[in-house]
Amino acid sequence: METDRPLDTLNQARGKRVIVELKNQKQFIGVLKSFDIHINIVLDDAEEHEAGELKRKVGTCFIRGDTIILLTPTK
Amino acid sequence: METDRPLDTLNQARGKRVIVELKNQKQFIGVLKSFDIHINIVLDDAEEHEAGELKRKVGTCFIRGDTIILLTPTK
Amino acid sequence: METDRPLDTLNQARGKRVIVELKNQKQFIGVLKSFDIHINIVLDDAEEHEAGELKRKVGTCFIRGDTIILLTPTK
Amino acid sequence: METDRPLDTLNQARGKRVIVELKNQKQFIGVLKSFDIHINIVLDDAEEHEAGELKRKVGTCFIRGDTIILLTPTK
Amino acid sequence: METDRPLDTLNQARGKRVIVELKNQKQFIGVLKSFDIHINIVLDDAEEHEAGELKRKVGTCFIRGDTIILLTPTK
Amino acid sequence: METDRPLDTLNQARGKRVIVELKNQKQFIGVLKSFDIHINIVLDDAEEHEAGELKRKVGTCFIRGDTIILLTPTK
Amino acid sequence: METDRPLDTLNQARGKRVIVELKNQKQFIGVLKSFDIHINIVLDDAEEHEAGELKRKVGTCFIRGDTIILLTPTK
Repeated sequence: METDRPLDTLNQARGKRVIVELKNQKQFIGVLKSFDIHINIVLDDAEEHEAGELKRKVGTCFIRGDTIILLTPTK
Repeated sequence: METDRPLDTLNQARGKRVIVELKNQKQFIGVLKSFDIHINIVLDDAEEHEAGELKRKVGTCFIRGDTIILLTPTK
Repeated sequence: METDRPLDTLNQARGKRVIVELKNQKQFIGVLKSFDIHINIVLDDAEEHEAGELKRKVGTCFIRGDTIILLTPTK
Repeated sequence: METDRPLDTLNQARGKRVIVELKNQKQFIGVLKSFDIHINIVLDDAEEHEAGELKRKVGTCFIRGDTIILLTPTK
Repeated sequence: METDRPLDTLNQARGKRVIVELKNQKQFIGVLKSFDIHINIVLDDAEEHEAGELKRKVGTCFIRGDTIILLTPTK
Repeated sequence: METDRPLDTLNQARGKRVIVELKNQKQFIGVLKSFDIHINIVLDDAEEHEAGELKRKVGTCFIRGDTIILLTPTK
Repeated sequence: METDRPLDTLNQARGKRVIVELKNQKQFIGVLKSFDIHINIVLDDAEEHEAGELKRKVGTCFIRGDTIILLTPTK
């Protein structure tokens, strides 16, 4: 059995709704379309949330990996 | 079918109007002319916005990748 | 005898409950599912704690390595 | 036709007057003499501006790439 | 005679009690179990100190190298 | 004719008096003795200035490249 | 004649007393025992100074290169 790696978890989240938290305290929720080894990611159908409130709908968005703290699938 | 990557999304945005948000809270809106793997980008016909207001027109501008938080196509 | 390396310690913590402290003062407690050489990690069954209090349950979460200060197994 | 890259835009700006904005809020205006892949640049006949006012003339100056936010040709 | 290198000093400190100071002002004191070229380290039997006071015992802990300012053997 | 590069300008400044501005707002003025591709530099006969005033003479000093904003030859 | 490089200056300072200034405003004075290309250094017989005052004697200490601003030989 191969050892599991963190990018495997991102791979399984493709096409699913995820929450992405950024270093600037903002949160983006959208469908994970793609990612790369720098953890640059693209979300489809994304929304920006701040302090738990929807701030705006941003559609497709590219987020630079070095601004990301964490990513979690939504339930 | 090849797996989609984040830079593919940037590639599809070439020649289209995009919003670029920087770590210093500024926003640049312009036509995506080019980008590279560091996410250095060049915008044509760019405008700087801050807190939703147009601050100035900057024409063509080169933005260093490590200052970028996210990039979204405009609707 | 081979010299012990830091990633060996992470490897031994796989499948066990760990505390992860981030640069933004937050703490995540969960089961270490995977990690890589950048110290990107995935926790299962994770909880976010702040100032010693449970803030929320986040399930599976991917944490980018450069936001991590330290990781300790729970007792 | 080859795809355009951000450094091509810098290359076309060689010998022309450019505005360089730094992370420390300062602005340098001068003739772009040279640049490299780290976006280290050298300006000739450079002036430092802050909040729209000329602060001093600095002649030739080498600016380290990682301090740069953006670069725009002057009109 | 070979020239001495910084990692040689860390190597000699293996198995001994060391003080590790972090960029976030915290101090960890423990037995140096392992380190790598990124200065990621693992301490055994570690304690967290802040402003000279013991804050808590953390047992084994992995500290990411880029958060470390300095490391000194205890006397 | 070869294209000019930023390090060529530093090379021409060897042995000449330069002003080096750091990210921590300090300024060092001295004779540029050497530099490398990380823009680590060594100044001879250096002085530290802050807010336009001489603070102290530091003789020879090695400055780590990642703390440097810019370098200009004195007139 | 070979061109002088910054690390040559550090090499000549081996075994001599140097002042090391860190990004966190602290100063360490000690005998330069070793350094590497990341400017990680080890000082022997080191003292921590802050605002010109001796704060404590730290004996041998390993300082991570990315926390260093500058290094000067003492007179």
